[in-house]
Amino acid sequence: MKCTVLTVGTEILFGSIVNTNSVFISQQLQELGIDVMYHMSVGDNPVRLKEMLAHAYLDCDMVITTGGLGPTQDDLTKEMICEYFGERNIEFPEEMRKVEAFFEKSGRKMTENNRKQAFFPEHAETLANPNGTAPGFWLNKNGKIIISMPGPPSEMRPMMVNEVRPRLLAMQDAALYSRNIMTYDIGESALETELLEFIDGQTDPTLATYAGTFQCKLRITSKRKTLKEAQAAVDDMTSRVCAKIPDNIYSIDGEELPAVVLRMLKEKGLTLSACESCTGGMFAAAVTDVPGASEVFDRSLVTYTERAKMEELGVSPKTLEEFSAVSARTAEEMAEGLHRASGSDVCVSVTGYAGPTGGTEEDPVGTFYVGLYHDGRCTAQRFTTRRPTRMRVREYAVLQMFLRIYKALK
Amino acid sequence: MKCTVLTVGTEILFGSIVNTNSVFISQQLQELGIDVMYHMSVGDNPVRLKEMLAHAYLDCDMVITTGGLGPTQDDLTKEMICEYFGERNIEFPEEMRKVEAFFEKSGRKMTENNRKQAFFPEHAETLANPNGTAPGFWLNKNGKIIISMPGPPSEMRPMMVNEVRPRLLAMQDAALYSRNIMTYDIGESALETELLEFIDGQTDPTLATYAGTFQCKLRITSKRKTLKEAQAAVDDMTSRVCAKIPDNIYSIDGEELPAVVLRMLKEKGLTLSACESCTGGMFAAAVTDVPGASEVFDRSLVTYTERAKMEELGVSPKTLEEFSAVSARTAEEMAEGLHRASGSDVCVSVTGYAGPTGGTEEDPVGTFYVGLYHDGRCTAQRFTTRRPTRMRVREYAVLQMFLRIYKALK
Repeated sequence: MKCTVLTVGTEILFGSIVNTNSVFISQQLQELGIDVMYHMSVGDNPVRLKEMLAHAYLDCDMVITTGGLGPTQDDLTKEMICEYFGERNIEFPEEMRKVEAFFEKSGRKMTENNRKQAFFPEHAETLANPNGTAPGFWLNKNGKIIISMPGPPSEMRPMMVNEVRPRLLAMQDAALYSRNIMTYDIGESALETELLEFIDGQTDPTLATYAGTFQCKLRITSKRKTLKEAQAAVDDMTSRVCAKIPDNIYSIDGEELPAVVLRMLKEKGLTLSACESCTGGMFAAAVTDVPGASEVFDRSLVTYTERAKMEELGVSPKTLEEFSAVSARTAEEMAEGLHRASGSDVCVSVTGYAGPTGGTEEDPVGTFYVGLYHDGRCTAQRFTTRRPTRMRVREYAVLQMFLRIYKALK
Repeated sequence: MKCTVLTVGTEILFGSIVNTNSVFISQQLQELGIDVMYHMSVGDNPVRLKEMLAHAYLDCDMVITTGGLGPTQDDLTKEMICEYFGERNIEFPEEMRKVEAFFEKSGRKMTENNRKQAFFPEHAETLANPNGTAPGFWLNKNGKIIISMPGPPSEMRPMMVNEVRPRLLAMQDAALYSRNIMTYDIGESALETELLEFIDGQTDPTLATYAGTFQCKLRITSKRKTLKEAQAAVDDMTSRVCAKIPDNIYSIDGEELPAVVLRMLKEKGLTLSACESCTGGMFAAAVTDVPGASEVFDRSLVTYTERAKMEELGVSPKTLEEFSAVSARTAEEMAEGLHRASGSDVCVSVTGYAGPTGGTEEDPVGTFYVGLYHDGRCTAQRFTTRRPTRMRVREYAVLQMFLRIYKALK
């Protein structure tokens, strides 16, 4: 099956919003084994919208649209689809009751134009929208499929996952299962080389790599007759991937590194504190982004000045003078001092040159030291950042702080 | 002038990358007064690429492409443009020397396929690419313009700004001037109501609003014969906008709030420290994201547990018991304790319920208190967050921490 994703909305053409709908839908279709041939975006203009529809079907048998289903005069997607397919746009009484009930419940007055949202192409099947007033719809006519969803991602995404995806699977008489494998200490190209046998020429399960800033995610997907078969195929490939790169995987079910580290700490009954210099609070922010962090996370100190490092952490003036604030010794003393102050079982520290200025010949911008107190011992490790912009250095340092803890606990 | 933005690359159709190129180009064209009619994306497929070109010119006289200019066999944009326009694809000797020089300088061996990057449609003008090996080009033929740029945003963006934009302005015999006005304490719809006279029916200068999560940006743009005229027109409208909403603007030159606050502190010779609970380090991370923050920022404490609040900040157990950790009194004691510990002139604190669980009947999830020590006095203020997801609460709290300092210093 070949598909065009057609997003409707003048705000897209103005560059006012980033078109994440096309990305989300394409990822879903990719998993389902449906080829996406084109992305097209058009404004709220009836003539051009109809033109685009005609063009979209030249090479494709399916078009998925988002946007233009709302109650205002600008919202014309449904009307143009009716014209293109020669369908009447008629009232669906059950949908009308739902729209009326929505307004009754919310206490707002239902204006006349809201009735528009209960009209659909006569042969369409509606797609439920529990997150808004405009339902989507699915129309199958003359060998062509059109699927129409609302524009707001908070409405479109659940509709794609809960309404569209099961129907597409049913059409293919298939079940789908996916798994995200989270890797570390390996780049995308090295990963592709290591896993070539699983990528090249594989049709099911498929393995895709997604490169983040400093981490890569692998996604293994299988489409089979039954969910059980798909799951078995994914599990089998997962084992083989794990055997191939055993020291580069921290999660086989998509769990992010901060959540993995906090879970490990919790399981071992350990508490965590941090002191940060160049990352300036980003590590703590990442920790506390995980719900329930308070069960293991005690405190974090951002000791940006030398004075704060001495006062809060007891880093010795001699160390700062002799080795400088960015040194293995300072990182160690920070972690040690933090352990003394907090009593936390695991204490992590970081000090480095985030740039744009600063750094020395031996330790240029992008260099940082991560100190770790764990099991009564304190050690520091040196890292350098490739292409060290301020944001990249800080992000990389946060990653290495989590990784040092992860490796120590593993 | 009417334009289609055509982005080329199979990774777009896979949903592997977000198409920010279309957004960036559209914003630039919008400022230049050039209407964007369509966004189209197509994979690295010669037949469909040529089909799309034909369709793009149905309603437009200009097409801007990105992607497919590299050295590999997949990169076919140039070849298809030549076919579409009936141009020969010929070597540009000067460009060949540049490609050769690039490889010589980088010490890498230049492979045969890299020569491809010095071939262009015979009547094209090249667009310099100081950030990569593939130059762009501009072709004007049969009343149609095509502008072709490389796909990586780090190469495309400077080319759009430095090479394409001046040529488009020259075509229109015009100069362009813009200004970003940063607002606070006012939502997008209130802003549009207040500034309706500047938005409705205005052709030059134009005023556009861009809504962020909790803040709005205004962009005033003028296109005139000379830069001086454009600047005068923008300055005039800026004054009138400032007079209309004098208490809602913190910057008229696009400076972000953290940078504004740090600059004010520096000008007044004041130091800053922070203690955070629910924001968990995000405030400190935002402060230290500003280069040179170390001149005014001393330290930040993330006191996530009650014990840390007592030990690090001297919050009294009685206060925690009587008023709870999320209360005006606790926020005040946090800021006071931080001043005692750090000696910083300005101390800001926050404590609140970020969710997803927690909260009380009077202070549900989304409620937070910001404490501020300044000028020898300590006060706390209560805030609530609309639609309080964990991320929104934390972001809103960071904003209000900066705003409390901003308002105190103003």
